Amino acid sequence: MKLNVVKIGGQVIDDAEMLSDCLTAFAKLEGPKILVHGGGKEATQMAKKLGIPVKMIDGRRVTDTQTLELITMLYGGKINKKIVAKLQALHCNAIGLSGADANVIRAQKREANPLDFGWVGDIVSVDALQIKNLLDPHQLVPIFCAITHDGKGQLLNTNADSIAAQLAIALTEFYTVDLWYCFEQKGVFLDPQQPDIIIETLDYATYQSLKADKIVSEGMLPKLDNCFAALRQKVHNVHIGNIDMLKGMSSHTTIQLNA
Amino acid sequence: MKLNVVKIGGQVIDDAEMLSDCLTAFAKLEGPKILVHGGGKEATQMAKKLGIPVKMIDGRRVTDTQTLELITMLYGGKINKKIVAKLQALHCNAIGLSGADANVIRAQKREANPLDFGWVGDIVSVDALQIKNLLDPHQLVPIFCAITHDGKGQLLNTNADSIAAQLAIALTEFYTVDLWYCFEQKGVFLDPQQPDIIIETLDYATYQSLKADKIVSEGMLPKLDNCFAALRQKVHNVHIGNIDMLKGMSSHTTIQLNA
Repeated sequence: MKLNVVKIGGQVIDDAEMLSDCLTAFAKLEGPKILVHGGGKEATQMAKKLGIPVKMIDGRRVTDTQTLELITMLYGGKINKKIVAKLQALHCNAIGLSGADANVIRAQKREANPLDFGWVGDIVSVDALQIKNLLDPHQLVPIFCAITHDGKGQLLNTNADSIAAQLAIALTEFYTVDLWYCFEQKGVFLDPQQPDIIIETLDYATYQSLKADKIVSEGMLPKLDNCFAALRQKVHNVHIGNIDMLKGMSSHTTIQLNA
Repeated sequence: MKLNVVKIGGQVIDDAEMLSDCLTAFAKLEGPKILVHGGGKEATQMAKKLGIPVKMIDGRRVTDTQTLELITMLYGGKINKKIVAKLQALHCNAIGLSGADANVIRAQKREANPLDFGWVGDIVSVDALQIKNLLDPHQLVPIFCAITHDGKGQLLNTNADSIAAQLAIALTEFYTVDLWYCFEQKGVFLDPQQPDIIIETLDYATYQSLKADKIVSEGMLPKLDNCFAALRQKVHNVHIGNIDMLKGMSSHTTIQLNA
């Protein structure tokens, strides 16, 4: 049986109209499906309001205790529950989850050496059977926020792209899995001045040469690494694009291992 | 089969040590169980930090849009996920839910006439079968925050005592249900100067006369009304007390219909 794992992030979360449009498209997808959402820019805005200082190392945010609480409120509370309620209104039987809920995603705190990013977790295991038990008999639609736990009582901030990839990989045990990364761009482009001209099919060798020539934007690299890792671990298809991709209406980038 | 529905609130939520103690006792309860948690005092503190004005009518808080967002972050995010992670560490397979998740609790916005309390919801229906499907085959332990939805995309702030009572009542369809209200007091007392001297058994006729004589504190009345409503609708036992009650270690107040 086919399973769609859809990750939404970037402006799709921040822009109420885009989010609504995206959830309508997601609700229409047939068969078992999972949504993973990032956090958008609201975390930074709310950190300012609450007077939580933003700490950065090498351009990356450090998740201290206050920031983890903020993220848990925002991703696990506000954004997740809003998405669940909106999907319910579209007759999609959504159930919001973090990795701690039903113990579905275990992670471990990233080593503090050489750089200490704080309460950031790297995924250790996914309980695919537990997730299947939610998907199958009761047709529930899991909606994941980007929070996991270590099994010892500690919540951890975890990259949403990685959560989507690891869920997709783990669920290949039971399904033919398609993984969709949905954000505001049409796909992977070569020229930031022409973001509408996208690579329709990106294979690993081409990716490596684009990476070496620093043609792909740096922000896309972790996402693409997740894509290829997923394909190498039996995920069937991996796609990157905007909301029209979910509607089956627009060209986007399909990732494949070989040309 | 027996089911325990435990509601925790008041200082038990605000005090980290009491919460930890309470979750340890809850994790040890045998058989299927459900936890419902209130919000504690943090909502008021955080409203101040975020500059959200607290509006009151007749001494009761009005849930405007900003307050609902705050409550969703705090109850559905921070408090709910913290409890879930802590229970997972105690090998209790907790899954955090609002009423919107899996569409388990539908509510409707309270009429704005005569008093408009904003986004406050009164429970319309509980999907007991869906909750049973989480409890039984997979031994999951639902952890409810005090948020429901109207099925049209709107989240609603809903009294946690009422959620506990309505869950208990609905689940009598499948279980022999015991309902436990756990807070910082030993039970229902007659003299606020002597809160350790509690009524061990409170029947409806006695409750009515205490109410008429204004002996029971006003804050207890909605809780007690919920207790008697639950008993009238087939809930087996209803208890009010502190954490020691959950441990089976202390006297508390047992509510019963007839003397």
